[in-house]
Amino acid sequence: MPGNSIGHLFRLTTFGESHGAAIGGVVDGCPAGLKLDLDAVQRELDRRRPGSTSLGTARNEADKVEFLSGLMDGITLGTPIAFLLRNTDARSTDYDALKDVYRPGHADMTWEEKYGIRDHRGGGRSSARETAARVVGGAIARQLLAQEGVQVQAYVEQVGSERVDRPYTDLDLASVWNNDVRTADPEAVARMTALIEQVRAEGDSIGGVIACVVRDVPVGLGEPVFDRLEADLAKAMLSINATKGFQIGNGFAAAALRGSQNNDPFILGWRRRPGPGMIGARVEEGAIRTATNNGGGTLGGISNGEDIRFSVAFKPPATIAKAQHTVDRSGSAVVIEAQGRHDPCVVPRAVPIVEAMTCLVLADHLLRNRTVRARNFAPQQH
Amino acid sequence: MPGNSIGHLFRLTTFGESHGAAIGGVVDGCPAGLKLDLDAVQRELDRRRPGSTSLGTARNEADKVEFLSGLMDGITLGTPIAFLLRNTDARSTDYDALKDVYRPGHADMTWEEKYGIRDHRGGGRSSARETAARVVGGAIARQLLAQEGVQVQAYVEQVGSERVDRPYTDLDLASVWNNDVRTADPEAVARMTALIEQVRAEGDSIGGVIACVVRDVPVGLGEPVFDRLEADLAKAMLSINATKGFQIGNGFAAAALRGSQNNDPFILGWRRRPGPGMIGARVEEGAIRTATNNGGGTLGGISNGEDIRFSVAFKPPATIAKAQHTVDRSGSAVVIEAQGRHDPCVVPRAVPIVEAMTCLVLADHLLRNRTVRARNFAPQQH
Amino acid sequence: MPGNSIGHLFRLTTFGESHGAAIGGVVDGCPAGLKLDLDAVQRELDRRRPGSTSLGTARNEADKVEFLSGLMDGITLGTPIAFLLRNTDARSTDYDALKDVYRPGHADMTWEEKYGIRDHRGGGRSSARETAARVVGGAIARQLLAQEGVQVQAYVEQVGSERVDRPYTDLDLASVWNNDVRTADPEAVARMTALIEQVRAEGDSIGGVIACVVRDVPVGLGEPVFDRLEADLAKAMLSINATKGFQIGNGFAAAALRGSQNNDPFILGWRRRPGPGMIGARVEEGAIRTATNNGGGTLGGISNGEDIRFSVAFKPPATIAKAQHTVDRSGSAVVIEAQGRHDPCVVPRAVPIVEAMTCLVLADHLLRNRTVRARNFAPQQH
Amino acid sequence: MPGNSIGHLFRLTTFGESHGAAIGGVVDGCPAGLKLDLDAVQRELDRRRPGSTSLGTARNEADKVEFLSGLMDGITLGTPIAFLLRNTDARSTDYDALKDVYRPGHADMTWEEKYGIRDHRGGGRSSARETAARVVGGAIARQLLAQEGVQVQAYVEQVGSERVDRPYTDLDLASVWNNDVRTADPEAVARMTALIEQVRAEGDSIGGVIACVVRDVPVGLGEPVFDRLEADLAKAMLSINATKGFQIGNGFAAAALRGSQNNDPFILGWRRRPGPGMIGARVEEGAIRTATNNGGGTLGGISNGEDIRFSVAFKPPATIAKAQHTVDRSGSAVVIEAQGRHDPCVVPRAVPIVEAMTCLVLADHLLRNRTVRARNFAPQQH
Repeated sequence: MPGNSIGHLFRLTTFGESHGAAIGGVVDGCPAGLKLDLDAVQRELDRRRPGSTSLGTARNEADKVEFLSGLMDGITLGTPIAFLLRNTDARSTDYDALKDVYRPGHADMTWEEKYGIRDHRGGGRSSARETAARVVGGAIARQLLAQEGVQVQAYVEQVGSERVDRPYTDLDLASVWNNDVRTADPEAVARMTALIEQVRAEGDSIGGVIACVVRDVPVGLGEPVFDRLEADLAKAMLSINATKGFQIGNGFAAAALRGSQNNDPFILGWRRRPGPGMIGARVEEGAIRTATNNGGGTLGGISNGEDIRFSVAFKPPATIAKAQHTVDRSGSAVVIEAQGRHDPCVVPRAVPIVEAMTCLVLADHLLRNRTVRARNFAPQQH
Repeated sequence: MPGNSIGHLFRLTTFGESHGAAIGGVVDGCPAGLKLDLDAVQRELDRRRPGSTSLGTARNEADKVEFLSGLMDGITLGTPIAFLLRNTDARSTDYDALKDVYRPGHADMTWEEKYGIRDHRGGGRSSARETAARVVGGAIARQLLAQEGVQVQAYVEQVGSERVDRPYTDLDLASVWNNDVRTADPEAVARMTALIEQVRAEGDSIGGVIACVVRDVPVGLGEPVFDRLEADLAKAMLSINATKGFQIGNGFAAAALRGSQNNDPFILGWRRRPGPGMIGARVEEGAIRTATNNGGGTLGGISNGEDIRFSVAFKPPATIAKAQHTVDRSGSAVVIEAQGRHDPCVVPRAVPIVEAMTCLVLADHLLRNRTVRARNFAPQQH
Repeated sequence: MPGNSIGHLFRLTTFGESHGAAIGGVVDGCPAGLKLDLDAVQRELDRRRPGSTSLGTARNEADKVEFLSGLMDGITLGTPIAFLLRNTDARSTDYDALKDVYRPGHADMTWEEKYGIRDHRGGGRSSARETAARVVGGAIARQLLAQEGVQVQAYVEQVGSERVDRPYTDLDLASVWNNDVRTADPEAVARMTALIEQVRAEGDSIGGVIACVVRDVPVGLGEPVFDRLEADLAKAMLSINATKGFQIGNGFAAAALRGSQNNDPFILGWRRRPGPGMIGARVEEGAIRTATNNGGGTLGGISNGEDIRFSVAFKPPATIAKAQHTVDRSGSAVVIEAQGRHDPCVVPRAVPIVEAMTCLVLADHLLRNRTVRARNFAPQQH
Repeated sequence: MPGNSIGHLFRLTTFGESHGAAIGGVVDGCPAGLKLDLDAVQRELDRRRPGSTSLGTARNEADKVEFLSGLMDGITLGTPIAFLLRNTDARSTDYDALKDVYRPGHADMTWEEKYGIRDHRGGGRSSARETAARVVGGAIARQLLAQEGVQVQAYVEQVGSERVDRPYTDLDLASVWNNDVRTADPEAVARMTALIEQVRAEGDSIGGVIACVVRDVPVGLGEPVFDRLEADLAKAMLSINATKGFQIGNGFAAAALRGSQNNDPFILGWRRRPGPGMIGARVEEGAIRTATNNGGGTLGGISNGEDIRFSVAFKPPATIAKAQHTVDRSGSAVVIEAQGRHDPCVVPRAVPIVEAMTCLVLADHLLRNRTVRARNFAPQQH
């Protein structure tokens, strides 16, 4: 069972090695009749691009996406949407020295042990370059979600020991794209930037945490029992390179709480709902809401209409300029030292990837949720 | 796309409502020729049973599993293994009062909004009773894994503010079944027990964390890019009722580390490997190992042969004896107060569930890994 | 990838060996809120039962289906519907003589070569008894389809050299259940019955063909390119024991025709459409119809609203009373001669199975078709 | 559930519209370490190309396949193999007249009714041009099968009323590529050619039948109960444009036979088996064979090692030069008459497509069959 696809009804398959001819993907299951803003797709891709922030690597990929199918006059046909990004800045000879060495913290050894062969150039398919295809797929998913009024925004919550101290409800999430750290707290920008620059100067790297918030989610997304919404989100996040953890709502902090503290009481309130043909337009009164949101937007694996909020831990990038002990393919101990410039911290560039994976999961569940009721079967109440 | 199955090649489908005729499941894809120890399956089930620890609820289900198919003389036929557990202690009228009320922290509201109907008796299918079927499926998976020498053991790492302070390598994990808290640290048993009893006396509940360790894992399990081993583990864990977080290796702590601290240097060492027809028998010299295990047993989504170690956060059970504000189906504010006895803390009984889900994920990847190389294609080196 | 499930959104998984504890299945994905007529399910099962026609075997299975989950007060919950049929008349010792012999035309040899083990009692899982679970799943699917007005009816079109000579449009398909041959042509009943009785008297068996007609199918079912409606129907039919061929519309006869003969001209006409909450109630004028139906109800893999008509070839049952040469497990040539009474012709009892598989395929595509258009995207015309 | 993928472990996804930027596909699950002969892939593609036979259309597509990923030095990496074919001869304006008309026998109406939109240029995605991507995928599958010694060869068995009268065992199947009709019977070439030319001159079209033979198939391929080998072959064949029927072994003729005629007696004989690293090299004595092959190579859905033989019916191409009555999108009756040159008979060019789909199904089952036995579980006998 190959593992290069995600989603059941809205399904992305990606392909490509870092230094092969191209990377790309196929979105299968995007409904027909969606007017796609292709410039918006490219803009999301630009945010992930090396060089998009001053805090990333200097690898320069134009990363212009080419669409091959599935569209006519910018409208989806209901057929597979294939796309590719040519690999133009692939200086593969840079990697000759790494052909026979297993870099600590990288996938070199495990891929080779699994497949008996690996493309060592730029990490081959284990390179984070593959995530560019996810961003394209996620950008399409986002436009499908926008029809329902759903909004997805992630931001950097932590870089090393530097954290955002305020709850997301006190932040202007749209400000993320105004700073190179991709955080939503103006107060944290300088602290985080300074730490990343310091780590870079030391030839080292640093980890971080990205938080993600989804607003105006329809009630009912998520398929119990195994495909709970948070389960599919957890999988999607842990499928991103360098991630080490996922938590939703109070997450690990909930382990230290009592039920009387952690339960979210139900109350009656209002909720925004997209009207026919419009977005975010109608206010539904008498909706069942929760007074608090310790749960993070799901109950029993199904969205409850509150903001979905979760966070994702990233390890420090494995590539560092410092000397490291390791082993080569002949079974000898060697010392390696990375040349060139690399990302000292992955989280600024990973923000669009977290968003993309979130959009993919939600779009899939949006479609799945269309099939759960028999024709003309109305809810029992209100 | 119904969400009641997990796994691709080793696939478990579960069914059943808490107060219906039965719960059960079908394991499809279990290879032929496996001699199943059915008593061992029942023993695992007994560990999850209400009443298995003094710290759980008083609901009394004998929970004897009946196998319906897939076996002849205790040997798997390669056909679906179906099984069921009758619901014998289902006092459904106890739940009449809850028919029209949405309990805070429960799935009542979201299930009803999604499906337009719900079985309110004992939580219906959202009840944790469903996990009994997972334990059966996981117990079968465990016996398949045992052929490769793989060992899975979980333990309670935290109850509320009470934690195990020592690394798992200093613990006797097999001691878990000797105490009712299901922890591996004898020193922590009293502290955790006291806290749970105190919380119970207050009519409240408390959260916790379960750690899981997998030993002697073959190198090569996990399918990049989306079906990384840690991604599928994360999904499996977040599909368990009441879970709020997952982390592998250093997890969220890795976010605060530098690459020079977090990278695991490769070294040459030895590794246990199962020999032909035997288990855990052969020692492989000159294996590529890591000096530390900050990564938690995977690199690039593929097992590297080190111990897989991860942990899972559980929220405090939503059912508490204290009065809570909520809303009923007619849209009126009401106050509810749970009657009877309930689990004040879910983690002791969730230990076998975490193990079962781990076994299911690993067994699936074990089979998937059989198809990744062309006939007669040998690894490139050592 | 285990092969015991069919369907993506409406999915049936079956389990069970002929002489194990039970056979049964799980329907996952049946939408919530469907009022199931369980007696109607049992009636369909009764039509497949050994003994249901005077022309079948004498094995006597009561075959009362027991539902285990997924229903409350007869209404589907949107959760898995599990069911089982106990094996009560399993005289396994009858089969001891066959333990080491490979019966010609049976799956004994291939199953054993594949799995290294087989349950020889009554054919184990390769027994047609497994199809009882399909009939239950199909009966549920049929009730979902009935909400859209879809009607599925099969009939015996050929037994050996005896054929129904008239087109189905000249037949009263509902008359199928009035005769033991299960044909819709009263004129053919006697001819077919006589042939079957003659073959039985000779200790031999005979093949046949079943035709199936689906009326009032919504336009739009079928997912190009691989999951065309006729492709999924073909697979479903060839998955039935003893089937050797499938053809739709003019089928193999189309190979001898010219385009000017075989094309179905489009015309404007009317079509029945189910109204809100009613069945088969509304007449749509100005619908695009075809003047003829050589295609058999699909174009480009998608239903066009005309009657779907196809037929399925069955080989003569492999079990005959005549002496046959074969081989045993030790590699010796032996002669076998079947004892007891067996079906001389399988098609009468296979009619409900063909219908069940048809219903399963259509129900799956009915749900799949709910997700192909973006919100509020209306067709371009009329 | 989008329908643009086929296979579970060896999976092909195709994309592309006839007049879009490109068509192509992604093969996911091809094992690592397979040395691919890319020229051989192109050669198979050339056989399907318009212009490859004198009996096809004059549309001129160079159809050079470009590989984008999954290979290093011509060896598969175990990662997705993506490829594309640019659409270079797409004169879309030729199709303006067809924008608002539903051609009889084409998918225009059903696609538009289903999706609410269609790409009318050259049939969009319903064009047989999509099958070029299948041929590429099938060519890769064929090279995987070659490692096991499996050989797949199809040929034209019937064009209109002209048939090959001899059994395939009397034919030199390799001679198929020596004539433009793609038949294996030299005696039939002239008859079939004359008929096609005559039909072409009349502005009409004609149907046909393709037979396919698979030799040296390993015993054990096919997953009961729903994914029987013949079921998956039937689906694959009926997923090809213009197909109307499938039969295996004696097929529909078996319906008229008795069991004593149709059963294949088991005998002891020999069988070719690929040795370690070699192909078709070893002869296995004492193998269980059948004296006849009425079944067509499977028993109970599993290959029995005999030649797999089946045939596929194709309708006459829908596009003809004669005037036809139809309807346009505004709901008016119109008369259309196709301009330009079209395939008068599809079967010569469909031979490589039938082979490709056969290879895809077999490769998938080859990999699936690797997971059916527990470690070290040996067959019970010989």
